[in-house]
Amino acid sequence: MEYFPAPLERLVEQFARLPGIGGKSAQRLAFYVLGLPEEEARAFADAIVDAKRSVTCCPVCRNFTAGGLCPICASPKRDGSMICVVADPRDVAAVERSREYNGRYHVLHGVISPMNHVGPDDLAIKPLLERVAEGGVAEVIMATNPDTEGEATAMYIARLLKPFDVRVTRLAYGIPVGGHLEFADDATLMRALEGRREM
Amino acid sequence: MEYFPAPLERLVEQFARLPGIGGKSAQRLAFYVLGLPEEEARAFADAIVDAKRSVTCCPVCRNFTAGGLCPICASPKRDGSMICVVADPRDVAAVERSREYNGRYHVLHGVISPMNHVGPDDLAIKPLLERVAEGGVAEVIMATNPDTEGEATAMYIARLLKPFDVRVTRLAYGIPVGGHLEFADDATLMRALEGRREM
Repeated sequence: MEYFPAPLERLVEQFARLPGIGGKSAQRLAFYVLGLPEEEARAFADAIVDAKRSVTCCPVCRNFTAGGLCPICASPKRDGSMICVVADPRDVAAVERSREYNGRYHVLHGVISPMNHVGPDDLAIKPLLERVAEGGVAEVIMATNPDTEGEATAMYIARLLKPFDVRVTRLAYGIPVGGHLEFADDATLMRALEGRREM
Repeated sequence: MEYFPAPLERLVEQFARLPGIGGKSAQRLAFYVLGLPEEEARAFADAIVDAKRSVTCCPVCRNFTAGGLCPICASPKRDGSMICVVADPRDVAAVERSREYNGRYHVLHGVISPMNHVGPDDLAIKPLLERVAEGGVAEVIMATNPDTEGEATAMYIARLLKPFDVRVTRLAYGIPVGGHLEFADDATLMRALEGRREM
């Protein structure tokens, strides 16, 4: 790979570190960026720095936000008595796309996964319990992925919520077992929200 | 897509503009970058700006270089009487990997493609003719891709080189017809260089 100048080589390496991007793809992307007009390449670089600097986690629901409360926690139109618990901010976007849900969210930022050394303390579970303990919450919908780890995480949290006076539900298995919430289509997600059941 | 904060949304959009990156992939990449430590995200951004700023075209062969002559044009060990004409800097890397060639290169930065509004004047053909006119060149190897456009570009340049006292050759069809030079394996490229023929 010593055939490209060092700065180009470094850019190829940066792209190659991204998930799902192999060596040839990294080359293709780096060459594409090199072919962009100066200001567009600069805009790309700025977008990285800017996102990294200004995107934080909402102090209430831990979803990504551009500072302060996220728009959903800040909105008086959303039903504060319902909390939909998801593993990832992308799952918030997926549930929002179904247009079936008007409550608030809680983002765990992962699932319990002993294989990957992720335990309950690595997730935003304690802030969830604190939200429920503060009162005003009638239902917690466990919307982690319907796979082994998502299921185990949902069970674990459901058990922790037992002492509280809240209904804990799980998305119905309208979502394909073993799949990922992020890739579910809107109709399936709508069916899953409608058919949620006691756990 | 209004579910992510604006700076994150902008980063997703930047990734989605890259070739071969769809909406879901762009999200995945943007979230990955957001999860990187501050200094690594900064290094990625810097690599883009740095590559864009410091990588230029070699004034002789038009290959990418980090300023001044490229290492191949600057090397006294390379045979200046041979010029291998390729469409893309990535093709230089591909030919170099075959370890069969010790001459110099000329990078056209594209092929003649009326469909994409790329004519001969959009390519580095004139600088090639000037190099040959200066003398000292015994052979020009046309190593554009073995597809319709690469073939047509090779024919076009071969005709322009007719008045000069140089041997013009074409890579042998060891390379699979309709394929791309960039993806050829080393052995195939070696065979193709060995079997090059008069045109």
